[in-house]
Amino acid sequence: MYDVGNIAIIGSGSWATAIAKIVVEHTHHIGWYFRRDERIEDFRRLGHNPTYLTSAHFDMNEVTLSSDINRLVQDYDTLIFVTPSPYLKAILKKVKSKLNNKFIVTAIKGIVPDENLVCSEYFHRILNVPDENLAVIGGPSHAEEVAMERLTYLTVGCSDQEKAQAMTEVLASNYVKTKTSPDVLGIEYASVLKNVYAIASGICAGLQYGDNFQSVIISNAMQEMERALTALNPIPRSMIDSVYLGDQLVTGYSNFSRNRTFGMMIGKGYSVKSAQVEMEMIAEGYFGTKCMKEINRHLHVNMPILDAVYNILYERISPQIEIKLLTDSFR
Amino acid sequence: MYDVGNIAIIGSGSWATAIAKIVVEHTHHIGWYFRRDERIEDFRRLGHNPTYLTSAHFDMNEVTLSSDINRLVQDYDTLIFVTPSPYLKAILKKVKSKLNNKFIVTAIKGIVPDENLVCSEYFHRILNVPDENLAVIGGPSHAEEVAMERLTYLTVGCSDQEKAQAMTEVLASNYVKTKTSPDVLGIEYASVLKNVYAIASGICAGLQYGDNFQSVIISNAMQEMERALTALNPIPRSMIDSVYLGDQLVTGYSNFSRNRTFGMMIGKGYSVKSAQVEMEMIAEGYFGTKCMKEINRHLHVNMPILDAVYNILYERISPQIEIKLLTDSFR
Repeated sequence: MYDVGNIAIIGSGSWATAIAKIVVEHTHHIGWYFRRDERIEDFRRLGHNPTYLTSAHFDMNEVTLSSDINRLVQDYDTLIFVTPSPYLKAILKKVKSKLNNKFIVTAIKGIVPDENLVCSEYFHRILNVPDENLAVIGGPSHAEEVAMERLTYLTVGCSDQEKAQAMTEVLASNYVKTKTSPDVLGIEYASVLKNVYAIASGICAGLQYGDNFQSVIISNAMQEMERALTALNPIPRSMIDSVYLGDQLVTGYSNFSRNRTFGMMIGKGYSVKSAQVEMEMIAEGYFGTKCMKEINRHLHVNMPILDAVYNILYERISPQIEIKLLTDSFR
Repeated sequence: MYDVGNIAIIGSGSWATAIAKIVVEHTHHIGWYFRRDERIEDFRRLGHNPTYLTSAHFDMNEVTLSSDINRLVQDYDTLIFVTPSPYLKAILKKVKSKLNNKFIVTAIKGIVPDENLVCSEYFHRILNVPDENLAVIGGPSHAEEVAMERLTYLTVGCSDQEKAQAMTEVLASNYVKTKTSPDVLGIEYASVLKNVYAIASGICAGLQYGDNFQSVIISNAMQEMERALTALNPIPRSMIDSVYLGDQLVTGYSNFSRNRTFGMMIGKGYSVKSAQVEMEMIAEGYFGTKCMKEINRHLHVNMPILDAVYNILYERISPQIEIKLLTDSFR
């Protein structure tokens, strides 16, 4: 059995904190990268992440916090990246040593800006990490529910099934169930697309389309996702697996989803800018839409939902018009 | 092109009324069976169904209401059955003439009691209606939203695609989009199973499982449904089609679903009887669970969700225990 060795978490948000909680319960030791030393001091004093998922308490004897990314890369065998995707490149720029002999696990849901690559592709193509050293953690998972120890199912994707298996064993507990998958790219792209579709679902809700139509847009989103994933990574997969459908549902059907809320505001008539100001943040799907649109310029997959969201967000075409056209393409 | 001829609706509930509204907008004439003459008088006086979907108004010159099922069977070419499934046999017992030269369309979501057959099987096996004269209307469709003319997608299943096509043209309008399918049995069984899964989803919500798990139970329900439909009607189908996934979502994820509410009460500790008394009705999925369990005694499909719901509702096994066992079978 593959040994994952020492594990470090790179990232300090809610999902990073949830993953840290899950991992440390099993390994009783993790390294953990925080960019700012003040946050590390606050964390040590409080015994929890000072900003996110504050209900998850940590035994500080089990956690080595550090703002020195190079020390962590040197001392740890497995690195779990859980930063927001826009920050990944900046963090990796600081890394002086090579990463190609590390086991790189990404739990980042997003595309690397400017590159139009998902994270595993970025590690592989730009940083020369071999495929068998790259894994992804996917599955329907509100971090808040993990903190509350509510039952959650995660999938570890890796081309090396023995490594995937070893990682699932680190994550499994009485409230986390795990399974493996060979579909690294599919899982990563699905987690980008689900946010685009959550925005679409929100736009339709904002435009007062009803529940009957919501279920139809999600069904059509899953069909569009299937076409896209088939083009991006042509291996057999079942779209009703929880790592694809479940993740879409937890995002697209939840009123707590930032992407869906952003879409609802757009559907109600807010401009993109005023919706972003009102929400005090930018929904990931906003960037994901642009990246996927650019990627699809080469793929040529029939993606009417992506096109509609892109036209609404970036071409300022009226949501009423775009969604009306979209409804005609649905089945 | 097949001509559906004159159309009569058999049934007087919300979904029957929604279908009547859709059809009469296209044909400008329907026959409509009501069991009780008082209701017919009230309907004529009010211009709407006195009991259900009262916001849907009808031009009484376009509607021939009758409590004489034999007159309707004699005068009309296409009969759309939209009764609750437990009443179908009683209504059909009154019919004196043969039905085998009629175009029989069922929009009944349920199993014929005692027979453990879906409606098209009952018409075929017991009443000798040939397969090509049998169609089903499926798809995600709260009747209330149809009354409000909110965009809805319906699927007509029929082994004769020309007849399916003719029926879709009767149903299509600016707020109803339609498509055809050859999968009569699959659509009917899916509409029975979705209620079982809505109860399961409700039980888990009642037991305080979170959103992460809700998305996993629906993903696993779709996988279980796929296994069952493959055994019942082994033709190719995509479970992410709106007639399967969409219908499950509109039932299983909606707090307005009676089946989900019933399940939530069971999950919260109500007995089956007290939940039924409290709701003043019996959720269809309660019967569906028993019928599907009996059907599966011959099919031998792996259906852990069905088994769990059956054990909880009929064997009085604690929801906590059954759902805990179920979670171990999930992926």
